[in-house]
Amino acid sequence: MTITQETRYVPSTTPSTEEQATLIIHGKDRPGIVAAVGAVLSRHNANIVSLDQYSDNPEGGEFFQRTVFTLEPMKVALEKVEADLAQVLRSDFELDFTLRALSALKRVAIFVSKSDHCLLELLWRQRRGELPITISMVISNHPDTADDVRSFGIPFFLVPSAGPDKSAAEAEHLRLLTGNVDLIVLARYMQIVSGDFIREVGVPIINIHHSFLPAFIGAGPYAKAKERGVKLIGATAHYVTEDLDEGPIIEQDVVRVTHGETVADLQRRGADVERSVLARAIQWHIEDRIIRTGNHTVVFS
Amino acid sequence: MTITQETRYVPSTTPSTEEQATLIIHGKDRPGIVAAVGAVLSRHNANIVSLDQYSDNPEGGEFFQRTVFTLEPMKVALEKVEADLAQVLRSDFELDFTLRALSALKRVAIFVSKSDHCLLELLWRQRRGELPITISMVISNHPDTADDVRSFGIPFFLVPSAGPDKSAAEAEHLRLLTGNVDLIVLARYMQIVSGDFIREVGVPIINIHHSFLPAFIGAGPYAKAKERGVKLIGATAHYVTEDLDEGPIIEQDVVRVTHGETVADLQRRGADVERSVLARAIQWHIEDRIIRTGNHTVVFS
Amino acid sequence: MTITQETRYVPSTTPSTEEQATLIIHGKDRPGIVAAVGAVLSRHNANIVSLDQYSDNPEGGEFFQRTVFTLEPMKVALEKVEADLAQVLRSDFELDFTLRALSALKRVAIFVSKSDHCLLELLWRQRRGELPITISMVISNHPDTADDVRSFGIPFFLVPSAGPDKSAAEAEHLRLLTGNVDLIVLARYMQIVSGDFIREVGVPIINIHHSFLPAFIGAGPYAKAKERGVKLIGATAHYVTEDLDEGPIIEQDVVRVTHGETVADLQRRGADVERSVLARAIQWHIEDRIIRTGNHTVVFS
Amino acid sequence: MTITQETRYVPSTTPSTEEQATLIIHGKDRPGIVAAVGAVLSRHNANIVSLDQYSDNPEGGEFFQRTVFTLEPMKVALEKVEADLAQVLRSDFELDFTLRALSALKRVAIFVSKSDHCLLELLWRQRRGELPITISMVISNHPDTADDVRSFGIPFFLVPSAGPDKSAAEAEHLRLLTGNVDLIVLARYMQIVSGDFIREVGVPIINIHHSFLPAFIGAGPYAKAKERGVKLIGATAHYVTEDLDEGPIIEQDVVRVTHGETVADLQRRGADVERSVLARAIQWHIEDRIIRTGNHTVVFS
Repeated sequence: MTITQETRYVPSTTPSTEEQATLIIHGKDRPGIVAAVGAVLSRHNANIVSLDQYSDNPEGGEFFQRTVFTLEPMKVALEKVEADLAQVLRSDFELDFTLRALSALKRVAIFVSKSDHCLLELLWRQRRGELPITISMVISNHPDTADDVRSFGIPFFLVPSAGPDKSAAEAEHLRLLTGNVDLIVLARYMQIVSGDFIREVGVPIINIHHSFLPAFIGAGPYAKAKERGVKLIGATAHYVTEDLDEGPIIEQDVVRVTHGETVADLQRRGADVERSVLARAIQWHIEDRIIRTGNHTVVFS
Repeated sequence: MTITQETRYVPSTTPSTEEQATLIIHGKDRPGIVAAVGAVLSRHNANIVSLDQYSDNPEGGEFFQRTVFTLEPMKVALEKVEADLAQVLRSDFELDFTLRALSALKRVAIFVSKSDHCLLELLWRQRRGELPITISMVISNHPDTADDVRSFGIPFFLVPSAGPDKSAAEAEHLRLLTGNVDLIVLARYMQIVSGDFIREVGVPIINIHHSFLPAFIGAGPYAKAKERGVKLIGATAHYVTEDLDEGPIIEQDVVRVTHGETVADLQRRGADVERSVLARAIQWHIEDRIIRTGNHTVVFS
Repeated sequence: MTITQETRYVPSTTPSTEEQATLIIHGKDRPGIVAAVGAVLSRHNANIVSLDQYSDNPEGGEFFQRTVFTLEPMKVALEKVEADLAQVLRSDFELDFTLRALSALKRVAIFVSKSDHCLLELLWRQRRGELPITISMVISNHPDTADDVRSFGIPFFLVPSAGPDKSAAEAEHLRLLTGNVDLIVLARYMQIVSGDFIREVGVPIINIHHSFLPAFIGAGPYAKAKERGVKLIGATAHYVTEDLDEGPIIEQDVVRVTHGETVADLQRRGADVERSVLARAIQWHIEDRIIRTGNHTVVFS
Repeated sequence: MTITQETRYVPSTTPSTEEQATLIIHGKDRPGIVAAVGAVLSRHNANIVSLDQYSDNPEGGEFFQRTVFTLEPMKVALEKVEADLAQVLRSDFELDFTLRALSALKRVAIFVSKSDHCLLELLWRQRRGELPITISMVISNHPDTADDVRSFGIPFFLVPSAGPDKSAAEAEHLRLLTGNVDLIVLARYMQIVSGDFIREVGVPIINIHHSFLPAFIGAGPYAKAKERGVKLIGATAHYVTEDLDEGPIIEQDVVRVTHGETVADLQRRGADVERSVLARAIQWHIEDRIIRTGNHTVVFS
């Protein structure tokens, strides 16, 4: 059975995301930004659906804004809005911004090792129309999930990762990814990615860690959790940086466990948390709800 | 021991709420509102700390906005901002708005019957500086909590409520309340308030209901929950309207229970949920985070 | 791609469930039951792994007990334990009991209409070895999920259900099910099953209802939840009885929602809760953790 | 206003705890324990209300059992049960056990520094009849909470703790506590207690730590949580051992926080979690639901 990913797409919000755009602004706070942005959008007859703005210190701190608006017709008008915003925000306020039509699906590569629970969660959500992304490819260092992935009509690439030198594997990853994806998701990929790779690939990387960070950093978190006797276990989705398990946290959740559960039980219970935490993190990322700042995230959820 | 409520006040956010104001706007959505409001605030050199805006339908739906900003000096400037906003919003956009300095504490009357858990939660939070309100008085149909209330330096008024005719009691309530309070909280007050009272008193009334509404409407919700065998019990804070247990819901929460718990156990478990749900609802109300619309609430939490 | 369900089975607890048995006892409480049961198990050299016992009233109420034990060799010994227990419990105490080797997988039929989220959750959990059941068949009144089901190597039977008279469809259901299954799961099956069917099929039926019962009984619970403006939405797994949405509740959970979410959003958020609540309910059922009593459940979770 | 703690006691379960006893058994697992214990209780006409038993490995692991039963008349009979159990469990099975009438309230000393939220939670719960303990005294290194404590009719002792040498203060603590208490609760007591004190005082000590251990060990956990950008903050109740923040965990919980919350906000949000986690841990301890084993706890909740 092969079902291509396009067949079941159901628009996920009303009014249709076909006509919506997001505007993300981030930079040094200065008076007048809201008025200036509002004026640009108003001039182009954009209807603001929602707007969230946050300043971490109104006296010279950082400014974060997410605006969702509709525009008719989107395509032509969006370029004009962008030109206008560039003038106002970059010149007058020295602020960065990104503008994107929500109908332009982000292209995602999923990395996975042997565990399939996070991978399948994403494949099914995407197929059901709940996760509006294009899954461009799945890359793995093990062949175990190849059949499952291909049954969804998605390319699967096996890139073995033997030995401590990852440079050959990462070179192959870069050949496959460059120009093809907007986001990489490590869906229980049990390999460390190098700083060089992160810089060269040039797109955000989201990882799901199987503990409530910063507790139980590194390998074997469920065994460590059992050893310490914690009463909750968790999972953490974060952006990947050169510092292992130290990147900006996007989302976390926990589930209650008891003394009677073995390490294998904790893994199973944790797998459910990992699935939902990773899915929420990706959902927020593709809806442009997350702004990175230092080693933190601002999430307009 | 009598501790007056002012003694321990600790400002609850940074920068100090002394200098912050909230602006709430609600009405029919029209293009250009954000730009117009932004322009007014910019003109008065207000620094926007946070802004949340939501439209339930960008094609002619309703518009909701909450803005927090700082202004220097607050007192003088706020009147000028208000005059300007009145011109722009009421004349040009036909929108309602309210503007308030966060340092102007809301005056609250708490109604209670015999159960003291919600009352004490509020008294202690207020004394600890976590709930920036002035508790003007506590009114009860029973004398049970008088000593506790007065030990906090707060007036306690006993207004018995015998028989089906509540008009004498409600007349006494109005004499005590009129002009003196900005909010009434029914903290497990086991009497029905009449539509006449709601209209005449003229300030919002928040009630805590001891179930996850709309399940278990009316009296004895914990007994009903036990009878039905539910696995979660909850509490609901809502604005009071003439329709009992049908007013706009502000906040809800639940806690897990088991087959082994008696009705008395459910009451105790539920009491903890009632305390925290009511405290959150009041916190959001006094921070002007809630906008009522029809029988719903928009909560910018 | 067709993967038979046996291929990936991983034993789910330690020590291996191959060697474990469960004993469920339910009836009128009388002194001495624990001692008598303990004596029987001790006589057969059973090692008790866990034992939970609950009495809803020690003065003549009902007695509920779940015991998990290991036995070597299981197969031969279990018959002797059963004979002994029958003598002690049925003759001396007039108690019902069931005894089962945990390695004897329960045979399950899944009923589904068009929504596939609950169905797929169960298929994947079973395949991953997390849900030790045999999925004997999937029955649907719509062809939509046929390909998915068959890709797991599981028979799919289409039994259309046109018109108000369900007797022909139910007769077909009985032909397929009788003698073949130990449990029926309604995984978002949007048809009412008759009292006659429930009686004749003779095995437990678990349904997932898309609301926090008893709130929003009947059709369209998410639309009703939106209309009422609740801040949490939920799902309820329950045993099916003749009274629609009134059967004994097994498990419930909720998720927080906001004013900004549409009915379609609530459906998507609720689908995640439905999946996890149904999976937990089935897990507890197959591990013999649930005892029905009147319209309630005792769950030793 | 001074209300003695006895005035409002309301029995917290049905049937009345006046007539209930708990039996805790812990030791090396051996076949036949359940039968032997059941036989003793049966012989004395005890009615078992609930029984939970767990073995961490049926092949030679550890055995944990909690039994609640009623006995008439309790006082006389309990001594005979104890003698019988001592014979059977200590001689035949080499197992430790403790037997206690639930009506015998545990005597508790609360240690506190300046923060009053955990202290007041316990004082009010005890007064309301929700926490069946006797609060024998409150000991503090600061005078701040003296008036509050004494208004509940409970002795308050100020024992300053200046300088690095705690030996004088701990000697004073021992004079106050020895023979007078069954449990010590550190309700945000910001001093380290020495190994010598723990050994000499000879009763369990429960601490509430203001983080989700093992994350953010040591001082300033909320500042560390803000720095790391976590999305949940938590609290942990644990038994105190010589290793700071490393004792057996009893209970943990978390609450969701956002990017917009300051360290002061996190402290306030965390205080609510600390209150409820500490209250639950004490409740379980006084109901004999917790068995310590190595650095873990078995909690029959």
